[in-house]
Amino acid sequence: MSDFATALHSAAEKIEARLAAEIAALPDSQVRDAMAYAARGGKKLRGFLVMESARLHGIAPEISVQAAAAIEAIHAYSLVHDDLPAMDDDDLRRGQPTVHVKWDEATAILVGDALQSLAFGLLARDDAAPTPQGRLALIASMAQAAGGAGMVLGQALDIEAETATAPLSLDEITALQAGKTGALIEWSACAGARMAQADTAPLAAYARALGLAFQIADDILDVEGDAALAGKRLHKDACAGKATFVSLLGLDGAKARAQDLIVQAQAALKVYGDDAAQLRDAAQFVIARSN
Amino acid sequence: MSDFATALHSAAEKIEARLAAEIAALPDSQVRDAMAYAARGGKKLRGFLVMESARLHGIAPEISVQAAAAIEAIHAYSLVHDDLPAMDDDDLRRGQPTVHVKWDEATAILVGDALQSLAFGLLARDDAAPTPQGRLALIASMAQAAGGAGMVLGQALDIEAETATAPLSLDEITALQAGKTGALIEWSACAGARMAQADTAPLAAYARALGLAFQIADDILDVEGDAALAGKRLHKDACAGKATFVSLLGLDGAKARAQDLIVQAQAALKVYGDDAAQLRDAAQFVIARSN
Repeated sequence: MSDFATALHSAAEKIEARLAAEIAALPDSQVRDAMAYAARGGKKLRGFLVMESARLHGIAPEISVQAAAAIEAIHAYSLVHDDLPAMDDDDLRRGQPTVHVKWDEATAILVGDALQSLAFGLLARDDAAPTPQGRLALIASMAQAAGGAGMVLGQALDIEAETATAPLSLDEITALQAGKTGALIEWSACAGARMAQADTAPLAAYARALGLAFQIADDILDVEGDAALAGKRLHKDACAGKATFVSLLGLDGAKARAQDLIVQAQAALKVYGDDAAQLRDAAQFVIARSN
Repeated sequence: MSDFATALHSAAEKIEARLAAEIAALPDSQVRDAMAYAARGGKKLRGFLVMESARLHGIAPEISVQAAAAIEAIHAYSLVHDDLPAMDDDDLRRGQPTVHVKWDEATAILVGDALQSLAFGLLARDDAAPTPQGRLALIASMAQAAGGAGMVLGQALDIEAETATAPLSLDEITALQAGKTGALIEWSACAGARMAQADTAPLAAYARALGLAFQIADDILDVEGDAALAGKRLHKDACAGKATFVSLLGLDGAKARAQDLIVQAQAALKVYGDDAAQLRDAAQFVIARSN
């Protein structure tokens, strides 16, 4: 494995263990079992971004793993709710049956709800940041990134687009994705600076380019990918006639745009010098998924 | 109106205005409109408990209204998700069509999700408690009360009970309700002590008795109440053959038990003397709903 792949894998193991321990500490219930199931697997890329940005600010992994587990809990909750029949109606996620298929819809709703609570609980822990102010900055920004001004806003615009008379323009789809996937990625990349009460601007610029590249890569994967490798249904957007970056820019245009964004993301890291090598590699990794 | 009714009404107006302003500040979307709809109405009893317990600890209403709005956002989210077809499948709430009836299920799922984020955002605000430690104590305890060890646990046990072979015992139904309605009521009553970093024990004892009385009163209301006044469907539990405090204790037994609990709740407030008059009246109000 490359240095990056090794680092990502090692972080993912720490984050998954932290999240599993937090869920295992809850009282016994079917919802707890389903929470553990939903939190397993995945690349844990958002959590990795948290831990790398924390490392850039001199914060130890024993501290940053709390916030990394928190963002992965939020991400897992969003997938469980997104997969519900009333939303994207997906039966496969990370190569396994989705929560509402394996259990039922009520359980899936409660699993997502409880994972969101758990995320905020992790951020409020004494060891989630070096200072109380750092923890509160993480919590306030998470509420913003996950809620009706961030991720949920993106999902709301996505739903509204489905009943709109015209397909979305490039500007509209960019705004939608900035919420839907961009907000959590930006939160993750900025988390270390927030914990340290340092300037978040360079990491925010990095994350905005990265988040958009990530979504373009997802659209490319939806067209070109192998469902078995992706662990989820593909070709959904094209079948649904939805506007995507590929439908708007063409396949080659989308690939070129993603590559430009990666260059932009990496340039934003200049201020951190060699310390940001892993974050630079993470940017490359994001589009390599689809190449 | 009695002094208590006037105080409850005045607090409810402040809390509703605070919550409405917070939602109005979100970017425009259908989900934002539906959040505003879901947050309107109701007695705001939980928020009133927050503001009264804060007053007992010398904390001004301009401070405590943040936490009061936060618990009402959590309560509103739980109602929106509870009303979904996969959960209780209710079409009427507070005398109005439920969110999934007025909009759709996807919107209702997102409304609940965003209201939960908004609640934690309110608690992380600079003016949500006199100190950063007070705010973090509110957030950590809210994550506990709302999540898989509190409210969601109660709902999970409720779902499991529906497929159980035998109806629940009195102990089991008491445990279920301690989570389902008790956890948020306890959080509310203890909030003022948490903000002030004072002892929560007397208020926790008050809230545990109050929460149980509240649920017994709800079961009595389900049997005896007037649907038009209650603003929701009644007689659901009896029709579903579910065990309730009324089915287990009989109507007179349930009324006597609720009255005992109110005496117990009021006794727990002794330490606060005359300052706790409104909380004592709140306890009486909780069972008066069903008498």
